[in-house]
Amino acid sequence: FTSKLPDVGTTIFTVMSKLAHQEGAINLAQGFPGFDSDPKLQQLVTKAMSDGYNQYAPMPGVYGLREQIANKINTLYGSDYHPESEVTVTAGATQAIYTIVSAFIRPEDEVIVLKPAYDCYEPAVTVNGGTIVPIQLKAPLYKVNWSAVERAITPKTKMLFINTPHNPTGTILDKEDMMELSRILKGTDIILLSDEVYEHIVFDGKKHESVARYPELRARSFITASFGKTFHNTGWKMGYTVAPKALMEEFQKVHQFNVFSAHHPSQKAFATYLKEPEHYLKLNDFFQQKRDLFLDLIKDSRFKVTPAAGTYFQMLDYSEITQEEDVEFAKRLTKDHKVASIPTSVFNLHQEDFKMLRFCFAKDDETLKKAATILCEI
Amino acid sequence: FTSKLPDVGTTIFTVMSKLAHQEGAINLAQGFPGFDSDPKLQQLVTKAMSDGYNQYAPMPGVYGLREQIANKINTLYGSDYHPESEVTVTAGATQAIYTIVSAFIRPEDEVIVLKPAYDCYEPAVTVNGGTIVPIQLKAPLYKVNWSAVERAITPKTKMLFINTPHNPTGTILDKEDMMELSRILKGTDIILLSDEVYEHIVFDGKKHESVARYPELRARSFITASFGKTFHNTGWKMGYTVAPKALMEEFQKVHQFNVFSAHHPSQKAFATYLKEPEHYLKLNDFFQQKRDLFLDLIKDSRFKVTPAAGTYFQMLDYSEITQEEDVEFAKRLTKDHKVASIPTSVFNLHQEDFKMLRFCFAKDDETLKKAATILCEI
Ligand SMILES: CSCCC(=O)C(=O)O
Ligand SMILES: CSCCC(=O)C(=O)O
Repeated sequence: FTSKLPDVGTTIFTVMSKLAHQEGAINLAQGFPGFDSDPKLQQLVTKAMSDGYNQYAPMPGVYGLREQIANKINTLYGSDYHPESEVTVTAGATQAIYTIVSAFIRPEDEVIVLKPAYDCYEPAVTVNGGTIVPIQLKAPLYKVNWSAVERAITPKTKMLFINTPHNPTGTILDKEDMMELSRILKGTDIILLSDEVYEHIVFDGKKHESVARYPELRARSFITASFGKTFHNTGWKMGYTVAPKALMEEFQKVHQFNVFSAHHPSQKAFATYLKEPEHYLKLNDFFQQKRDLFLDLIKDSRFKVTPAAGTYFQMLDYSEITQEEDVEFAKRLTKDHKVASIPTSVFNLHQEDFKMLRFCFAKDDETLKKAATILCEI
Repeated sequence: FTSKLPDVGTTIFTVMSKLAHQEGAINLAQGFPGFDSDPKLQQLVTKAMSDGYNQYAPMPGVYGLREQIANKINTLYGSDYHPESEVTVTAGATQAIYTIVSAFIRPEDEVIVLKPAYDCYEPAVTVNGGTIVPIQLKAPLYKVNWSAVERAITPKTKMLFINTPHNPTGTILDKEDMMELSRILKGTDIILLSDEVYEHIVFDGKKHESVARYPELRARSFITASFGKTFHNTGWKMGYTVAPKALMEEFQKVHQFNVFSAHHPSQKAFATYLKEPEHYLKLNDFFQQKRDLFLDLIKDSRFKVTPAAGTYFQMLDYSEITQEEDVEFAKRLTKDHKVASIPTSVFNLHQEDFKMLRFCFAKDDETLKKAATILCEI
């Protein structure tokens, strides 16, 4: 029974979370918050269940929620997404990404992926028979060389992935990046998949450069986003994607046969909860405090730091501590020192090893202090 | 932006539910119950949320739930599924089916589908580049001619779909069918996908012939099942699939990049709820009463009936009423008579029209009475 992903193993997140659990280590590996989602939001789910919203939601999502989503994006990014035809609620951003790729990528198609890349992009392309055209970015700044991207485009290029704020590096794309990207895509029919699940976690007063702000990009893009990342409930598996009508219609043709629709009670809850923008607007400050605390706590360690510009991940360069391979070092750190992180070579082309570990700082201050104390002793 | 499903429209379920809504018709079309899920089950979800199970569930599902699932199947069908390696919780049976097909079907592969077939099987095959080999069954009994299936097998046959109890026809496969199927698959490496989402809805004292009962089949099969269908909460989008370890490993490689994991609080709830088998064992009687009531109520109508042997759907033959095409007649019935059903030609090869409409009787008795009164006047 040979499958289409014979060489794929379990994701690094499952591997490291399991190891953290076995070893009783502080888990700064897999990206989920160590604190809970808002009880008010949970109460809204309970209410939706007892109000009887327990049968299929409409395939594209509850209309009131799609309205809130369009409204949020249009307000924040000056765009004009239409809730009826340009928004679909999904069982998480990962499901959106898998479905987008499945809808469009055929054997022979090329997909440009900037490396390091979150681990779900490439298997989706592989399952659908496409060819990945990887472009490796370099630590510690991971700046995109847009001329290199331009050179990678061929008549077979069907799709390009970007991810801002970026997991695992914590970098963000700025206005100049987006202008360059607009320039090189202009006149092509390349579909842009912009993974913006950390859109509400950007630091130091910078603003999130959503593709929604750039008409040249918006017209060819799917944007994927996550309620799990934004509202501290990664286990509810809910997110959404927006795209121009013509793209969204094709997306929904596959979506309806992949999951059909997403969890109804949660959709009702989010439809109400999103009416209060402070729930997501406060996220920048909330996580800035976490990042600043974490950076302050490890400033005397032997790790080298480039502060994360976004996401709830901080990359730490351990090259002054050891020359071990990062997977080995991450495992040793978990077993011997009881702090779990994510080795990042697994996200690079040819597992290139920049001696970078990724630490999730979406944890309560106490946990961050404990972890940092250990990291300072290494 | 051409997609891989250019010719697919919105599913018939979405079309008819929308029309029913617009027309204020009684909706016996889309398959979902008109009554609610158990408040106890809802309370368990609420408890799971407040107990903090709001972050990612383990990728294959909460272990306690996988144990209950394996235990249920092994007890009912005398099998020996292992919860650790042979069970995965999914975001509904549809997601399981889409993922199974994605994991195994490549261009050039042939997939045998018995028609009429539920509408999510074939698009999954098409998206993955496979070729559908359809075998049309004939109304009103829809008996499978296993010799015809045997003749359809070629060296390229990679997968075969069965569905028992069967949607839309309400038929079931019996022991003889399963023995025949075992015989023709023996010695091949064809994967069997057995959609058993209505496993707990079988009438007249018959028993559900799960693939799990037949070692020759079990060794090559995925079984898909649905909590939505069984526990009256289709909108929670939760189901599962079981398969031998070697198949399940390959399934999970794709599953982890499609949705990663399913809704955590619901999984905790079902892990507790499934400990009381009466919750699903009572379903046969519950729906037998509904079917019997519905059959009794329409016995003086001009529709011809072959009683459903399983599922919560009853097919009605309207050939003595009109010779209109079934899609037209179903729409007219919804608009002019205010009862919505599902035309079944859409599930047949070349839209073959047997003049059969499908009615969902998972509704409260009052609704069934109202609908039947109308149907008797036509
Ligand atoms: C789906 S598990 C991985 C979660 C995550 O987004 C991350 O750790 O990067
Ligand atoms: C996913 S909508 C269709 C529901 C269903 O199973 C049916 O009506 O057959």
